[in-house]
Amino acid sequence: MTINASSIFKDVEKIRKTAPLVHNITNYVVMNTTANALLAIGASPVMAHALPEVEEMTGIAGALVINIGTLSDAWIEAMFKAAKKAAQRKIPIIIDPVGVGATQYRTRTARQLIQATPPSIIRGNGSEIMALCQQDQKTKGVDSTSASDQAVDAAKALAREYGCVVCITGKIDYIVSQETLLQVKNGHAMMPYVTGLGCTATALCGAFAAVNPEVDKAAAHAMAVMGIAGEMAARTAQGPGSLQVNFIDSLYQLSQTHIKEFFKA
Amino acid sequence: MTINASSIFKDVEKIRKTAPLVHNITNYVVMNTTANALLAIGASPVMAHALPEVEEMTGIAGALVINIGTLSDAWIEAMFKAAKKAAQRKIPIIIDPVGVGATQYRTRTARQLIQATPPSIIRGNGSEIMALCQQDQKTKGVDSTSASDQAVDAAKALAREYGCVVCITGKIDYIVSQETLLQVKNGHAMMPYVTGLGCTATALCGAFAAVNPEVDKAAAHAMAVMGIAGEMAARTAQGPGSLQVNFIDSLYQLSQTHIKEFFKA
Amino acid sequence: MTINASSIFKDVEKIRKTAPLVHNITNYVVMNTTANALLAIGASPVMAHALPEVEEMTGIAGALVINIGTLSDAWIEAMFKAAKKAAQRKIPIIIDPVGVGATQYRTRTARQLIQATPPSIIRGNGSEIMALCQQDQKTKGVDSTSASDQAVDAAKALAREYGCVVCITGKIDYIVSQETLLQVKNGHAMMPYVTGLGCTATALCGAFAAVNPEVDKAAAHAMAVMGIAGEMAARTAQGPGSLQVNFIDSLYQLSQTHIKEFFKA
Repeated sequence: MTINASSIFKDVEKIRKTAPLVHNITNYVVMNTTANALLAIGASPVMAHALPEVEEMTGIAGALVINIGTLSDAWIEAMFKAAKKAAQRKIPIIIDPVGVGATQYRTRTARQLIQATPPSIIRGNGSEIMALCQQDQKTKGVDSTSASDQAVDAAKALAREYGCVVCITGKIDYIVSQETLLQVKNGHAMMPYVTGLGCTATALCGAFAAVNPEVDKAAAHAMAVMGIAGEMAARTAQGPGSLQVNFIDSLYQLSQTHIKEFFKA
Repeated sequence: MTINASSIFKDVEKIRKTAPLVHNITNYVVMNTTANALLAIGASPVMAHALPEVEEMTGIAGALVINIGTLSDAWIEAMFKAAKKAAQRKIPIIIDPVGVGATQYRTRTARQLIQATPPSIIRGNGSEIMALCQQDQKTKGVDSTSASDQAVDAAKALAREYGCVVCITGKIDYIVSQETLLQVKNGHAMMPYVTGLGCTATALCGAFAAVNPEVDKAAAHAMAVMGIAGEMAARTAQGPGSLQVNFIDSLYQLSQTHIKEFFKA
Repeated sequence: MTINASSIFKDVEKIRKTAPLVHNITNYVVMNTTANALLAIGASPVMAHALPEVEEMTGIAGALVINIGTLSDAWIEAMFKAAKKAAQRKIPIIIDPVGVGATQYRTRTARQLIQATPPSIIRGNGSEIMALCQQDQKTKGVDSTSASDQAVDAAKALAREYGCVVCITGKIDYIVSQETLLQVKNGHAMMPYVTGLGCTATALCGAFAAVNPEVDKAAAHAMAVMGIAGEMAARTAQGPGSLQVNFIDSLYQLSQTHIKEFFKA
C-alpha cells in the first residue's frame, strides 16, 4: 500500500466537491487558523463545545476533531460526549494530544479519551506520542536508536492497542497503523515557528478522513498536503508571519501539478 | 431612501473621528479578526463577557454586538445581561445568529435574545435568517421563488415582529426594515473562504450604528464597506490568506475615491 | 545604567539559544498572535488556564505572563494559583492590566493580583498604569504637566510599593523601576491599529525576563525589540493587516544590524 500524487489529489477533489462538515472541539489559540485552513482546502469547519449542543453538532458532522490544547473541565466533558456520539455514528474521530506529558491533567485526559472512544487517528509530535504511550508501551528504551524510532515504536503500540492510525509529525512524518507504516517527507524548517500548524495538521486529518474511509491513506494524504503547502508557502515567505498567510493561500491554490512537483515520500 | 458613496463615506469619517467603543460578546474564532477590522475602520473594540463586568462595559459602549458562534451557558447569561443594559441605555444592539438552525441550542438562544431585547440589527446569511424566523413566519414557502426571496420574506417578518433591521448577506446583501429594502452588490467570491467575515460584517454594523441613528442606512453602509474592502483586497490576493490581510489593509485605506470606484447598489 | 544595541541583541540571542518556556494565561483575542510573536523571537509559548494544571505548567516555565483582557472568575482563580507557584519558584511574573479602569472587576482583579504576588514587570499604556495606581498614588495631580508625566509618577509609585518594574508603552516607552527610568523611542504610529500589540509587548517581557535577571533592562530590551520590529514592519506595510504579518516576520529576522540601524533611546 502506498500513496502518490494522484491518490492525494483525489481526496482533495472530494473535499472540494463535498465540503465535509468538520466539527472541532479545539483550543483557543488555533480556532481561527484551523478554521481558515479547513475552508482553504474546501471543507466546512464548525467550532462548538457547549454540552447542550455538542451531540447535535457531531450528529451532522462528517468528522470530529478533538484537540486538548487549552483544556478545562467543562470542555473535557463536552469532548467525551461528542466522541461518544461520533462513535455511535461511526464517523472518524481525530485526537490531538497537545502537550501530553507536560501536565498530568493533559496526559490523563488524552488517555481517557482514547480509551473511552478509540479514535480513527491520533496526531502528535514524537514526544507527545511517546508520552501518550509510556505506560502501555513495552518495546521502548534500548531497542530504539533515536527519538524517531522510539516514537514509531510508541505509535505501533498505540495502533495495536486501539486499532487506530497514529500520525507522528516532524521532519519526516510517520503514519502508523497496525499493518502499515507510511512516510511523508514534505514540510519546511520554518513551519514550527508558526503556532498551531500541528493543530492544523490534525484538523486536515478530519477533512481527509471524512472523505476517505482508508484511514491510514487519509492521514498520509493530509500530511502530504500540509507539507506541500508549507513548502509552497516558504518559497516567498520572509518569516513565519508571511509563511502562515502563504500557507493558507497554498491550500486554496493546491493543484495536482503542485502535488506532483513537491510530493516526497 | 437610498445610500450612496457620499453617505457611506460620511459614516466612515464619523467612525474615524469619534472612534466609538463597540462592546463585543462574540465567538472565540473571530475575536482577533473582528477586533482588527473594527480598529482598521477606526472604531474601538472591546471584548468582555464576564457577568461581573458586562453591564459596566456595555454602560460605556456606543454599541453592543452579540455573536452566538461559540456559545455556552455562562456566556448566554452575560449576553442577556449586557443586552438589557444596552436596551436601557438605548444604544444599538446587533445580533449575529451564527449557526442558527444547526442546533436547537443556537436557535433557542438567538430567538430568546431577540425577544427579550429586540435588537437594532440582525445580521446573518440567508439560511440563518430563515431558520431564525421559521416559527413566526407566515409567508414563506410557495410564495418564494428562490432561497434569496425566502430569506427576504423571513427578514421582513422579523423586521415587522421586532421593529428591527435585518441584514442578509450573500452574493447580494439585502438590508430589510419594516418600510425599506436596500441592496448592496459588492463583495467577492473568495470572501466565504475566510473564516468569520460574516462576523466581521456584524461587528462593522456595530460601528456604523454607533455613529448613525438611521439604522437601515448604517447597516447598508457597513455592508457596502465590507464588500468594497473585499473587492479591493481581492485585486492582489493569492488566496484567502492574503485576502484576509489585504481586507484589513483596505478597511484602513478606504477613501471616498475607493467607495466611488467600487460601490454597487 | 543604560541599554544599547549590543545589550538588546545579547538577550535576543539568549532567547533564541535557550527557547525559554513562557506560560501565558492571557485573553482570547491575542492568544494566537502572542504565541506567534513568542515563537518568532525564539521563545516557547504555552497557554494553559485550567485549575488542575496551571501550577504544574508554571512549574516548568521560565516566566509567567498574566493578561486580564477577557477575564472570568474561573480564569482569575487560575491566575492567582499560577502566580503563587511562580512566586515560590522565583520565576518572573509579568502582568498586563488590560482595560483597568474600564470596569471595577478589572481594576479590583489587577490590584489584588499585584498585591498577592508582586510581579517583576507590569506593562500597560499610560491610562492603565494611572488607573492601577490611583488609590495608592500620592504625587499625582498638580505636580504633573502631561498625561505621560502623570503615568510616570503613577509608575514610580507602583514601582516603590511593589518593588517591580513598570513599563508604560506609548509614543515613548518608559521603563520605571525604584531606582531607574529608561526610555525607548522606537515604534510606529500604525501599531495601535493592530489588536493586541500591547499584549504582545507584555508577552515579550516574559521571554526577555526569562533570560535576563536585570528586570528593568529585560523590559527595556523587550520594548526596543517591539518598536524596532514595528518600524521594520511599517516600511512595506499597506495597513494594519500587512503590518501584523510583517511584524512577525521582523521578529524572526531581527539581527544586530537591524537593532543598530533602528534603536532609539
